[in-house]
Amino acid sequence: MPIMEISIVPLGTESASVSGYVADAVKILKEQKGIKYELTPMATIIESDSVRKLLNIAGKMHRTVLKDKIKRVVTTIKIDDRKDKKLTAKGKIKSVQKRLRALNGGF
Amino acid sequence: MPIMEISIVPLGTESASVSGYVADAVKILKEQKGIKYELTPMATIIESDSVRKLLNIAGKMHRTVLKDKIKRVVTTIKIDDRKDKKLTAKGKIKSVQKRLRALNGGF
Amino acid sequence: MPIMEISIVPLGTESASVSGYVADAVKILKEQKGIKYELTPMATIIESDSVRKLLNIAGKMHRTVLKDKIKRVVTTIKIDDRKDKKLTAKGKIKSVQKRLRALNGGF
Amino acid sequence: MPIMEISIVPLGTESASVSGYVADAVKILKEQKGIKYELTPMATIIESDSVRKLLNIAGKMHRTVLKDKIKRVVTTIKIDDRKDKKLTAKGKIKSVQKRLRALNGGF
Repeated sequence: MPIMEISIVPLGTESASVSGYVADAVKILKEQKGIKYELTPMATIIESDSVRKLLNIAGKMHRTVLKDKIKRVVTTIKIDDRKDKKLTAKGKIKSVQKRLRALNGGF
Repeated sequence: MPIMEISIVPLGTESASVSGYVADAVKILKEQKGIKYELTPMATIIESDSVRKLLNIAGKMHRTVLKDKIKRVVTTIKIDDRKDKKLTAKGKIKSVQKRLRALNGGF
Repeated sequence: MPIMEISIVPLGTESASVSGYVADAVKILKEQKGIKYELTPMATIIESDSVRKLLNIAGKMHRTVLKDKIKRVVTTIKIDDRKDKKLTAKGKIKSVQKRLRALNGGF
Repeated sequence: MPIMEISIVPLGTESASVSGYVADAVKILKEQKGIKYELTPMATIIESDSVRKLLNIAGKMHRTVLKDKIKRVVTTIKIDDRKDKKLTAKGKIKSVQKRLRALNGGF
């Protein structure tokens, strides 16, 4: 179970606000089957069962923003992929939180 | 109000699990004043009132992981900084969600 | 003409040296047609005529490293894609250098 | 010897060309002592003897671009830091090239 983080930045937009373009890209995630996603303040996190599927979705999101008036897009993708253990977005956060509690002397 | 996303990856750790190292880095955030932070599945998001302060914290987190047995660390930092509007982690997500509702024909 | 920057980090490798894994990933670039690539100290830069092709290659490189003994890989990809102008690796550097000369009072 | 990769993207610039802003940021590197830097097609690579110094320079570059008319900047920084071996930009590339020659049956 790989996890992907993706952020898409349109350049040359006149306004410094780009949430409308981000929403266009996030919207297409609703039509994808077999994925989970969530928004963070800096990116979108997507879980799927293969890197191939994740990169295919990344390409779709990128092309969605690079259309009409937009002339240039910089897309950043990070994939965390692990073979020995099922990786989930929730599981990763829980794992760090558990360690934090241990560091703080909790049980 | 700049926002920073930081992720710290230790190399050469024998185990592929690195949440303990991430927890060490996140722990020092509790001692910092005037910041807000939250964990995402792929990184930590930190809000503060200056880029200088954020980069100072990033350096501390980096050094915390690169200690003892750890010989190499790759740290990735992204800063989103805006002059014309107060940028907050919550505000950024709300802004995209509002646009998504508009795209979906909501009010 | 999009340009992709890719860096692949294997986790849990015992040794902090990972150049052998990077070489495995770069090696498969020699078999790809219609691309140009170059190594930088922090990543590999690849030029091709479509984002689809670049992401396909990124997936191949990622899978090449995540094999045999390697249990976890973190891959970072950045794509710079521009519709209004042909983007090339050489052209991008030349463009900044030209601006630098202008800033320094050159001709 | 840590190595930093930095890329600075201004938003809301009307034009999709941003090399002038990148040049402004790179220009200040000439005034810094004790560093080496080089341009790649996607970023600037900087070598120095401490992470503190590198992050200080990153902050300067960021602030240089976020001025005058520019209202928003997204800066991405990656630091590769190794304790057990002197890390240099040239050395990292040579190390991968050596491994590639070995893979190809060279000596």
